[in-house]
Amino acid sequence: MVPPAGFVLPGADKQEVFVRMAIVVNLDAERRSAKPSLDRLTTLVADDIKAVNQRILDKMQSPVALIPTLARHLIASGGKRLRPMLTLAAARLCRYEGDRHIELAACVEFIHSATLLHDDVVDESDMRRGQETANSVWGNQASVLVGDFLFSRAFQLMVADGSLEVLRILSEASAVISEGEVLQLMTAHDPSASEEAYLQVIRSKTAALFAAAARVGAVVADRPKAEVEALDSYGLNLGIAFQLIDDVLDYSAVQAELGKTVGDDFREGKVTLPVVLAWRRGDEGERAFWTRTIAESQQEDGDLQQAIAMMNRHRTLEDTVARARHYGAIARDALMIFPESETRAALVELIDFCIDRAY
Amino acid sequence: MVPPAGFVLPGADKQEVFVRMAIVVNLDAERRSAKPSLDRLTTLVADDIKAVNQRILDKMQSPVALIPTLARHLIASGGKRLRPMLTLAAARLCRYEGDRHIELAACVEFIHSATLLHDDVVDESDMRRGQETANSVWGNQASVLVGDFLFSRAFQLMVADGSLEVLRILSEASAVISEGEVLQLMTAHDPSASEEAYLQVIRSKTAALFAAAARVGAVVADRPKAEVEALDSYGLNLGIAFQLIDDVLDYSAVQAELGKTVGDDFREGKVTLPVVLAWRRGDEGERAFWTRTIAESQQEDGDLQQAIAMMNRHRTLEDTVARARHYGAIARDALMIFPESETRAALVELIDFCIDRAY
Repeated sequence: MVPPAGFVLPGADKQEVFVRMAIVVNLDAERRSAKPSLDRLTTLVADDIKAVNQRILDKMQSPVALIPTLARHLIASGGKRLRPMLTLAAARLCRYEGDRHIELAACVEFIHSATLLHDDVVDESDMRRGQETANSVWGNQASVLVGDFLFSRAFQLMVADGSLEVLRILSEASAVISEGEVLQLMTAHDPSASEEAYLQVIRSKTAALFAAAARVGAVVADRPKAEVEALDSYGLNLGIAFQLIDDVLDYSAVQAELGKTVGDDFREGKVTLPVVLAWRRGDEGERAFWTRTIAESQQEDGDLQQAIAMMNRHRTLEDTVARARHYGAIARDALMIFPESETRAALVELIDFCIDRAY
Repeated sequence: MVPPAGFVLPGADKQEVFVRMAIVVNLDAERRSAKPSLDRLTTLVADDIKAVNQRILDKMQSPVALIPTLARHLIASGGKRLRPMLTLAAARLCRYEGDRHIELAACVEFIHSATLLHDDVVDESDMRRGQETANSVWGNQASVLVGDFLFSRAFQLMVADGSLEVLRILSEASAVISEGEVLQLMTAHDPSASEEAYLQVIRSKTAALFAAAARVGAVVADRPKAEVEALDSYGLNLGIAFQLIDDVLDYSAVQAELGKTVGDDFREGKVTLPVVLAWRRGDEGERAFWTRTIAESQQEDGDLQQAIAMMNRHRTLEDTVARARHYGAIARDALMIFPESETRAALVELIDFCIDRAY
């Protein structure tokens, strides 16, 4: 067990920053009896997710060999399948008994994969999930085009399913995602961006697909509006919490275990909530630091450590986790109109799991 | 009028190549009474295309300002609107009297625009239609993401239209287009590629959307299968002819007038039919030239002129035009199941116009 933690004091030695951060955010975990995990959810939807994986493999085939090669590299590289699991679990929560949710969960994963391929091009990323990105292996050109293919294929599968309502949900989510990505591009280098502007970006680029994925599960089960909207709200707020924690992880030691380099967002000048809060809470000298490193992209050795020290001084990583808890709480309450069940409990645990990644 | 032309002889002076090319391909034009134009078609669908342009402007709006800015740069930059015109004219040929064709023609143009934005990124192009490309003004990142937005928006509009058949046609076309682009990427630097492989690429990347655009016109009019397929065949073969001529233009003097630099394909190592034929008809020395310039991308001053001289020597530009005429003839015959009408005549003239661009 981790010992109880004290907060990092201003002026703390830079070398200690990582360690102390890890200690600080473990404070809360102490209160819980067991570490939340994905296990309950993955066990419940195990057969379904196996079927989804098979559909994904079948449907990414093409006579053009590079397409399945590149798609397999990304899709088979062991993502958590969080988004398709939302569709599966939502359908299960709604006591759906058909098999349309399998195909539609595959669509959700295709759309997600397409956006990942394009994101890696946009961000010029070299690593994802601990392995080289498709663009660094096959070039940006292939990533752009195979992303387009996966996106088109997702729509073909939805058309085969035949529900205009599902098509509406996922085409709207796709448009919102790209709007969010463009918005992020435009605000990427402005550390004085408002928390509201930041939230707008993550609502669009991440949470919209979580919401759509969960909503689709209720729609295939033909549930009443209140349940459809409850699952949408669950997905949306879970997605916001998930992205907030992702943004925290980019400045935390835990990140290294995920195969991502710590500080990617910082080096790319991405403005995430830990930065937004640090800028707002900082003095003139600190704001000058953020302006130089983020707005002007003038970074030197030691700047990342310096950035993390400031975040610790102002507790912006902890407070970003607190914000994530807020959205997690909304997600939890959204589910409470459904009667108690193992699936509902697993979906609640998923919220805790997403937030607990920060520790 | 251009004087009757002789063929370019082997060993012709390099400096004369451009001029002689222009003369050679005018041979055939002499036989015709008048130069085919787009005027008849554009007059017939003038009101409709105006409505389509308005829908495009309305539907590319977004609270994220960069999206309409970038989209306007591309969409309002004066393309010929050939693909949406196909939908409009096909609907007219089928005596359709509703207004769904307006919205669907806008979808077709959105899909086309999305692929153009991504193409320019993939090809690293600086110029299109005589002006700077979006990627050269706003960067590759914005072009990738706004392309995604336009694509998603197209699907939203189709969903609003509500026809699963239209959604099926255009989602399949989109998947085929990206397959064709990936195929082109993989075969880009192989001058020994077969004519069949080249045809497969242009069928997918260009002709599939022409076919889908025309087909949609018949589908909204709820016409019988034979007419739907006739319009699909017209679009497909017109699209092949169109792309063949585009590929000829990249080596011809006429190209400069279109605002494109001559020799883009050559410099990018793109293998088009004029190259495929020149490689097949060339001797060892010529094949070594193509290997060096196309396969190995080792180009020096004068290589483009040298390439054009070889193409003239083997008449590969003329013969590519002849191939285009073949597909144009199939397109024409496909239309002959429709009774004679002004619209049919305009669609036939469109074939001649597309081929006549070579002159």
